[in-house]
Amino acid sequence: MAVRTLAWQGGDPPALRLLDQTRLPETEAYLDARTNDDVIGAIQRLSVRGAPALGATGAYGVGIILVQAEREGWDTGRVKSEIDRLHDARPTAVNLAWGVDRVRSLVADGLDAVLAEAHRIAAEDEAANHQLSRLGADWVIRRVGDRPLTVLTHCNTGSLATTAWGTALGIVRELHARRRLERVHVNETRPLLQGARLTSWELQQDGIEHAVQVDSAAAGLILRHGVDAVLIGADRITANGDTVNKVGSVGLALACAEAGVPFVVAAPWSTVDLSTPDGAAVEIEQRAEEEVLSFNGSPTTGRGATGYNPAFDVTPRHLIDLIVTERGAVEPTPGDDDPFAEAMA
Amino acid sequence: MAVRTLAWQGGDPPALRLLDQTRLPETEAYLDARTNDDVIGAIQRLSVRGAPALGATGAYGVGIILVQAEREGWDTGRVKSEIDRLHDARPTAVNLAWGVDRVRSLVADGLDAVLAEAHRIAAEDEAANHQLSRLGADWVIRRVGDRPLTVLTHCNTGSLATTAWGTALGIVRELHARRRLERVHVNETRPLLQGARLTSWELQQDGIEHAVQVDSAAAGLILRHGVDAVLIGADRITANGDTVNKVGSVGLALACAEAGVPFVVAAPWSTVDLSTPDGAAVEIEQRAEEEVLSFNGSPTTGRGATGYNPAFDVTPRHLIDLIVTERGAVEPTPGDDDPFAEAMA
Repeated sequence: MAVRTLAWQGGDPPALRLLDQTRLPETEAYLDARTNDDVIGAIQRLSVRGAPALGATGAYGVGIILVQAEREGWDTGRVKSEIDRLHDARPTAVNLAWGVDRVRSLVADGLDAVLAEAHRIAAEDEAANHQLSRLGADWVIRRVGDRPLTVLTHCNTGSLATTAWGTALGIVRELHARRRLERVHVNETRPLLQGARLTSWELQQDGIEHAVQVDSAAAGLILRHGVDAVLIGADRITANGDTVNKVGSVGLALACAEAGVPFVVAAPWSTVDLSTPDGAAVEIEQRAEEEVLSFNGSPTTGRGATGYNPAFDVTPRHLIDLIVTERGAVEPTPGDDDPFAEAMA
Repeated sequence: MAVRTLAWQGGDPPALRLLDQTRLPETEAYLDARTNDDVIGAIQRLSVRGAPALGATGAYGVGIILVQAEREGWDTGRVKSEIDRLHDARPTAVNLAWGVDRVRSLVADGLDAVLAEAHRIAAEDEAANHQLSRLGADWVIRRVGDRPLTVLTHCNTGSLATTAWGTALGIVRELHARRRLERVHVNETRPLLQGARLTSWELQQDGIEHAVQVDSAAAGLILRHGVDAVLIGADRITANGDTVNKVGSVGLALACAEAGVPFVVAAPWSTVDLSTPDGAAVEIEQRAEEEVLSFNGSPTTGRGATGYNPAFDVTPRHLIDLIVTERGAVEPTPGDDDPFAEAMA
């Protein structure tokens, strides 16, 4: 748990130090981002990823912009356009834009004010993760049974995806800490294998028993009641409870609904986007086809094949049993168009 | 279409020549299997695969056993035990056992009798594929619309998986021949990537427009009505219509049921196993965890991770809109425990 996904490094020039997640699990290497291009490049290559981690990265990234502006003599127009470019570096995840926007009004107050807010965002995220993990574990145990449980998770929602601890994987850690965890099934999460590479690595570091599986093995496993619950994170939760998350999430939800297995979405409140009414209104990021047409760098198809590569899918709220944030546990119910009213109060 | 998955080669000693599907699409290489170990090894490594192709392989494999028995002076007990070993080389696919059993009673009549029956099996399979492809295309067009269609398929069910033409991919080819095909979405089909490696290769050879995608992208695409129908093959269809097929199939069926998109199972009649009442009675082959934990020899996880690797899953008949064989198109209906009564008549 000593690994930090991101940390501000003082010095001259200062840098946003990022654990390069594209090189895990083989190599624990860090990138020092010193320009806005460095930060945006790291975001787009997924060297840093995970909705909550992107929130903090957005805030610290504005700090990098201010340092670079000072060094290179940018005017306020250029600063604004660079901040906008960072804000839009990935279109689907709401947290990046949220993190940028939270410090934007402090730009006039200077670097120290921006950094103080970025540190606050990181600290709040860690606290939120712990809180939502406790609430999520409480709910799952109440719903499924007070015994060691087998759960399934997708992608990576651990300390690598957040500033620390994790969301869905935070619930896993909480269950483990309470001795209520038997085993974790980890979807490998094609195309970029965040489950096989990152989640498995985190679980190994914590000594948590798990098995990695191909993504398409999940539905059959769920239908045979091979797991007690499915826990995922979120990149954006819309006002009605529809959840945008890593491609493959909605397939898990469909299997859970068929089998009566609880399907849990875990995310910090910053992932809830009340300004977007529902999932249909969210732009789904299409990524480069090379990610699909190759596997760990070697091609999987004949030359000339084309690829289709949506990064996310939308799970409609009627397939979700629980949305848990640090503000509380919400069970979306059909017809309730304002499921977060209580959490906002 | 000139490629033959398998062919008997005369000569001294004779061989069963198999296109080594583990080396496609990079290399079009052939294996000459001259011993039962060669045949079983090719089956277990998936150098030859696909339910219908395994049927013919089982029949020709008995021929190889007879040649080897003559060469090595086996007694009838040894011949029987070697035939049993071939029969059980893969536990889930019914066609391999079916192909072995179809020639078993001819063993006493000698090699020529066995080979004549094996050739008949191969020819019948090709004819069956064409017939079921016509019936399947008729049904899909009637159900979805008489216009160019976009379909999704999983794994490989083309000429590589059969003796020629294909089953689900045979329907694709039939639609293409009728100018009723717009585009095919091909699931890459982890862990062994039969879709990315084999189906894409076959479609490229036929000049059929297609896109390869990660398996978990299918559910979101289906829910957004990005495809008009989903077409899969089968490794075993039980008496009630439950269908055992490549892992990942049932997830597609769940998405189709949610979206109202037709889900079609295409297979020769030899895949229908009336002696097994339902999917719950089928043993699901578990394959080596290395298939999940690595790709092309490079590991995808940290050292010490374990893998979970079921080769198949079961799609319950209530999620299936059509089962098409050369004997006809069957729409399973809930409560009908004998959906194949008419096809058997």
